[in-house]
Amino acid sequence: MERVNVGLVGFGTVGGAFYRLMQANGGLFQSKFGVAAGITAVAEKDPGKVQAAFPGQKVVPDYRTLTADPSIAVIVELVGGTGVAYEVIRGALEAGKHVITANKALLALRGDELFTMARKRGVELRFEGAVCGAIPIIKVVRESLVANRVASILGIVNGTSNYILTRMSEGSLSFAEALGEAQAAGFAEADPTLDVGGGDSAHKISLLASFAFGGWIDYRELLVEGITGITAGEIEFASSAGFVFKLLASARWNEGRPAVTVFPALVPKDHPLSFVRGEMNAVMTRSDFMGPAVFIGKGAGGDPTASSVASDLGDLLLAIQATGRRDTARFDPARKLELFPRDQLEHRYFFHFITANRPGIWAAVTTRLADNGINIESVHQKWEDRSLPSDLYVLVDEAPEARARQALADICAAPGIDPHSRYYRILAE
Amino acid sequence: MERVNVGLVGFGTVGGAFYRLMQANGGLFQSKFGVAAGITAVAEKDPGKVQAAFPGQKVVPDYRTLTADPSIAVIVELVGGTGVAYEVIRGALEAGKHVITANKALLALRGDELFTMARKRGVELRFEGAVCGAIPIIKVVRESLVANRVASILGIVNGTSNYILTRMSEGSLSFAEALGEAQAAGFAEADPTLDVGGGDSAHKISLLASFAFGGWIDYRELLVEGITGITAGEIEFASSAGFVFKLLASARWNEGRPAVTVFPALVPKDHPLSFVRGEMNAVMTRSDFMGPAVFIGKGAGGDPTASSVASDLGDLLLAIQATGRRDTARFDPARKLELFPRDQLEHRYFFHFITANRPGIWAAVTTRLADNGINIESVHQKWEDRSLPSDLYVLVDEAPEARARQALADICAAPGIDPHSRYYRILAE
Repeated sequence: MERVNVGLVGFGTVGGAFYRLMQANGGLFQSKFGVAAGITAVAEKDPGKVQAAFPGQKVVPDYRTLTADPSIAVIVELVGGTGVAYEVIRGALEAGKHVITANKALLALRGDELFTMARKRGVELRFEGAVCGAIPIIKVVRESLVANRVASILGIVNGTSNYILTRMSEGSLSFAEALGEAQAAGFAEADPTLDVGGGDSAHKISLLASFAFGGWIDYRELLVEGITGITAGEIEFASSAGFVFKLLASARWNEGRPAVTVFPALVPKDHPLSFVRGEMNAVMTRSDFMGPAVFIGKGAGGDPTASSVASDLGDLLLAIQATGRRDTARFDPARKLELFPRDQLEHRYFFHFITANRPGIWAAVTTRLADNGINIESVHQKWEDRSLPSDLYVLVDEAPEARARQALADICAAPGIDPHSRYYRILAE
Repeated sequence: MERVNVGLVGFGTVGGAFYRLMQANGGLFQSKFGVAAGITAVAEKDPGKVQAAFPGQKVVPDYRTLTADPSIAVIVELVGGTGVAYEVIRGALEAGKHVITANKALLALRGDELFTMARKRGVELRFEGAVCGAIPIIKVVRESLVANRVASILGIVNGTSNYILTRMSEGSLSFAEALGEAQAAGFAEADPTLDVGGGDSAHKISLLASFAFGGWIDYRELLVEGITGITAGEIEFASSAGFVFKLLASARWNEGRPAVTVFPALVPKDHPLSFVRGEMNAVMTRSDFMGPAVFIGKGAGGDPTASSVASDLGDLLLAIQATGRRDTARFDPARKLELFPRDQLEHRYFFHFITANRPGIWAAVTTRLADNGINIESVHQKWEDRSLPSDLYVLVDEAPEARARQALADICAAPGIDPHSRYYRILAE
């Protein structure tokens, strides 16, 4: 086969960028592999949009025209969402076509089914662009770490949240101000819930963890907390104690089971992830032979994601030329992995108690921490006026989640303690 | 083929680590690809060494036993050096076997010949472990950037030098003290010339640049300067001006030609590479679609390099199973690339003049800089005693290499200026 025909479904930000990439650099496939690859047809519900930008391009309104076309070997799904996109991918796989997608939400939700279907059909379902945009972290986990046992994956995998936390830290903004700025700069959606609530990070880390640990991990089972409650005062105190706040997605191999979590954490200022600013993404892996490694790049946007989609296409060109090549998903989508129980996860914590300003408060806090077997490392009180609530900041030693949560509940039940008191975890690796 | 037999040649640090990796994790190949891969035989000039550690292992003294064995599909060359290792690789390629090597010195010297030979024979010559140990930078350049135009590659690719510079900066050590410490810690060879002189970095960046720019680049044509002359005073001044010293290997696409260099440079303290400490390596790539990306990891040592060798083996398992797969080197080893002329490279500079302590010195320096069209940004003089030489530190605006060199020569010819005066370049991206 001397030319590989690609059908592109969806022409939004990423679809448009991938189209431009193929126009600008598509010739590199020919020069590097001796095989031409090009977009034969585009499916977009509003064909006029594409044709206005690229006159003469064949555009159809219905993706089924592409999945039914025997001359098309690869379908690139860049529709997004979990509705039509699912139909597109399933239809393409059923038609025996290779599929490339950047759709983390869909793969996190139905990847077990779709990867299994790809295996059965003997085609590939590639998704480098789905996790951390331009960062080739799927390739690293699948291929570079092929003969390593992965101990942990730790990432800043949501650019919106990292942009907001960076601006809160460096610009002394409130969460609302930083979110507004992120929206104005195009780094946050009108509805930012999936980003700032941790859901997007959960999609990505569940996919990474599935490939790292060899079986399917359901993102709905993860411990997930977002960044919406973080205050300027918490960030300021954390900084004075030597930490920056980061929304961390983490997957660790813990006593024979994967521990997979998403939460905002205090990261020591000398940790490699503390330097990752703004909308950038980063992933740190630890493995038995490779050792620690860090991968930093643009986590979203049209061009960076298109670059990853094109990298998948390059790999597929090899697969398509070959016969007998068996590049399975290198994990078993049908084997569901049971997570390490979140209550037994151990962390150091940063407690923030919001309290009345009167005798007995510290006594209640410290007694109830002690009753739960939690060892205090350091304490700090911030108060500005006797008539206002006080902020008590307490750093404590390692303890299981269940005990930290119980201690918080016990303390919040004490008189004079605001029930919005909370804790954050401290990165220890 | 349900089992791929590997012949290992060389059983030093990396060879031994690769052997241990295959013992510990070799089963992952079977579970991930459905194909077993294992070391069938080891060639080592002192067979007793291997057999003492691993009784029962088949060991032969002559690598030709392995290259002549039709049951062996892959030869892993971990002998090192440019003598026997060349014979091993050439012999293996001629016998139609795939080869994996971690030998940067040999590939930099004779890669054009060896890659061409591999192409002709239809086998693969893989070398992830040759550049930056565990960092999968070859895979990133070949595969992740397959459809990008690479604008620049900038790396800290020699761990020994980075360890020395880090200790000089953070521990206020002299070069000699830091080198001694690196040797004691096992991060420097007894003869450190190749590392601290920049030669090792030149090997690596010439290979990276060849793959990034698609043709062969001869490392002997690069501008290469090492770190041996750097003084504690220079590091201290650079730090006060907001910079850290790093030995940078750089490859840029410059007006249609590759500009490839190795030299110590002043890196701004907020640049991602400034955070890379100790023996770690890092590579930053800039490309049209991927954008900026940074890859950090262990640059040397047995386990990290073995991890990369095993990653190559994983890729070869796919190639071996397939027929018709044409993964060429993705660059043309026979096409020699002409470098951008080093005299025309433009940089900002940090000049260090060592001078007598008397009237007229500053006048000579500033006049001769002006005569060469070099614009001063800031000046600083350090003197402790009228009877001792003074250190004049001058930061200047961008100028071509040829003019900076001429200005230095002119100034060194002035009375009262020490001919050991010198300049460093300042990283501008």
